[in-house]
Amino acid sequence: MIDKEFLLIPGPTPLPPRVISAMTQPIINHRGPRFKEMFQKAMIALKELINCSGDVYLIPSSGTGAMELSVDNFTSKGDKVLVVDTGIFGERFYMMNVARGRNALRLKVEWGRAVQPEEITEVLISNSDVKAVFIAHNETSATTINDIKQISSRIKKMSDCFIIVDAVSSIGVTEIDIDNWGIDVLIGASQKGLMSPPGIGIVAASKRAVEYAMKKENETYYFDVKSIKKNADINQSFTTFPVSTFLGLSEALKMIQEEGYENIYKRHLIYRNLVRTALKEIGLELVANDADASPGLTGIYAPKGINANDIISMMRERYGVEIASAQGNLKGKAFRISHMGYINSNDLLVAISALECTLKDLGYNDIEMGIGTKKFLELRRKFEV
Amino acid sequence: MIDKEFLLIPGPTPLPPRVISAMTQPIINHRGPRFKEMFQKAMIALKELINCSGDVYLIPSSGTGAMELSVDNFTSKGDKVLVVDTGIFGERFYMMNVARGRNALRLKVEWGRAVQPEEITEVLISNSDVKAVFIAHNETSATTINDIKQISSRIKKMSDCFIIVDAVSSIGVTEIDIDNWGIDVLIGASQKGLMSPPGIGIVAASKRAVEYAMKKENETYYFDVKSIKKNADINQSFTTFPVSTFLGLSEALKMIQEEGYENIYKRHLIYRNLVRTALKEIGLELVANDADASPGLTGIYAPKGINANDIISMMRERYGVEIASAQGNLKGKAFRISHMGYINSNDLLVAISALECTLKDLGYNDIEMGIGTKKFLELRRKFEV
Repeated sequence: MIDKEFLLIPGPTPLPPRVISAMTQPIINHRGPRFKEMFQKAMIALKELINCSGDVYLIPSSGTGAMELSVDNFTSKGDKVLVVDTGIFGERFYMMNVARGRNALRLKVEWGRAVQPEEITEVLISNSDVKAVFIAHNETSATTINDIKQISSRIKKMSDCFIIVDAVSSIGVTEIDIDNWGIDVLIGASQKGLMSPPGIGIVAASKRAVEYAMKKENETYYFDVKSIKKNADINQSFTTFPVSTFLGLSEALKMIQEEGYENIYKRHLIYRNLVRTALKEIGLELVANDADASPGLTGIYAPKGINANDIISMMRERYGVEIASAQGNLKGKAFRISHMGYINSNDLLVAISALECTLKDLGYNDIEMGIGTKKFLELRRKFEV
Repeated sequence: MIDKEFLLIPGPTPLPPRVISAMTQPIINHRGPRFKEMFQKAMIALKELINCSGDVYLIPSSGTGAMELSVDNFTSKGDKVLVVDTGIFGERFYMMNVARGRNALRLKVEWGRAVQPEEITEVLISNSDVKAVFIAHNETSATTINDIKQISSRIKKMSDCFIIVDAVSSIGVTEIDIDNWGIDVLIGASQKGLMSPPGIGIVAASKRAVEYAMKKENETYYFDVKSIKKNADINQSFTTFPVSTFLGLSEALKMIQEEGYENIYKRHLIYRNLVRTALKEIGLELVANDADASPGLTGIYAPKGINANDIISMMRERYGVEIASAQGNLKGKAFRISHMGYINSNDLLVAISALECTLKDLGYNDIEMGIGTKKFLELRRKFEV
């Protein structure tokens, strides 16, 4: 049944019917008064969600485009910067900094664990001229989460460098507090925890980061914060805006306010724990440490002798469940089940049970059929989810 | 009645119900097989539409982002380039080239007329080291169209520089023939003639342009054609793709094939002529020369003593018709009525009649009420539109 699919990839995530419905409104003039009113409301809702007293900008791009904007506007050519590389998205920050002529140091951390604050401060001790630290909050490739609050507080004690955080897969999934944590630049996107279609990048910036960007030389026209801010200050986009996607995002932000931030963050944690417990019961090895595991998605090694891509294909073709491949060196060796955004415990139940069937289909006979599903159901009864 | 609006701005343009309906399909995995199939189909349809045997890339950005990509990938730092500036979008190309460290010459043409091929070749005679000519096909700000076929043929006789064309508001509106006209890079976007929501930029490139981009040094990560091509060659996006907008665009491309390219181009020309004739009958002065007038939209000067912005507000608030402000120096002095995309002669009839009423409301009593509307109706009977 081709049209009934359980989508459990870490973005784009499934859309709530209310979001889909909002997108069917007619196109409105992106320079007219109705759009301005909605644009302002969305910026206010986002500022509240991530506790930001600085600016929030919305950009027609993927999260990667918003990441590149952060390099162009909050650092300058030749600057020494430190990139914390805990997976593909850390690596991406590094490559962008190189492409843009920054002197980039790279702190590589093995996949599956979070970076420890001391690892960062150690580099900063011998590199006091570092102007910015780039780091992913939720590292979707390694399925880990870095403790930005701790890290930021430790960096602040020794350096006034900018702290630039990729929160593309953490915004709307786990707490973010720009003002109190001391984050300077935070990057998000519409299509993960925010339950909207892809196409809108989000950039939040502290007051001092905005001041810096206002003074520095332009390196780009499209991603130029000077022009983006000038327009945002009068509640409009610097360029033609993805109106339909934005209509969806506006509705999703309302839903997030209605459910309540704390409830959302708690829900994601419970799902993570349910999924991890069930997978361990099946006897599978997980990519991330328990202590560092992302609330947004779980990475799983394929059992010995089974190719992870065969698991993904079988899940799709036989059971109608779409999960994600691992990235980088883990391709073929691992796969990922997402629990971020508009996904609930019934979706996850379907995924776990499909995985059990798939493993049997592929010859993995080490365990009793249904044992993971049973564990999942038992544990779920303890929560209201 | 706030929700019944006639949207007649030059992008984003109204969406056909079929396109809206396509966008309500569930999100699919942008790395999965179903997406790849649709992505390939869209690229093939676009290549056919603009007759391109080279590559077509789809980018999550506005048209402006795709313009910046063309500077980054098809010229190099320090290159001498010639920017033909017939309005805001020519000016934008100029500013991007400057921001990216190109040595940009600027050929300024007064608004309202097309550039003559000789004006360009004259500059090239004394600047044989020009590596690329940047030009807008349809200049939306000045409401003119430049004759790219003629211009390209004249340039080719004297230079092998790249010809880089902003076709954001001409694609799907008027003929484009990349292969036969000798265009190297063409930039489009989803939200104008292509009848889809904003959010997808389009870049078409000739084989020699692609070869150039493959060899040159990376200046950007997000807009890097090397990585974009590597992914496009296996029918996928280099970055998370605006899935919902893309579902709409795919449907719109089918509709364009069904109507037939020639029929679409003819329809736009007829609408242009209907609108211009009616406006002249009302006694209004038009921004563009008859010979150079865009098939996609018409610019109109406000009568003496009336502010164009008052016309726009009255049209919106009293008559439910959304037209566009003029840009740059013409702001307040002129306004624009779009006839591109999913707009038919009944929409235009509403606009012309609302304009007549608005002018009366604002004290313009020089003409008989309804005279423009009458002219429009008489002329329309001669065509099947």
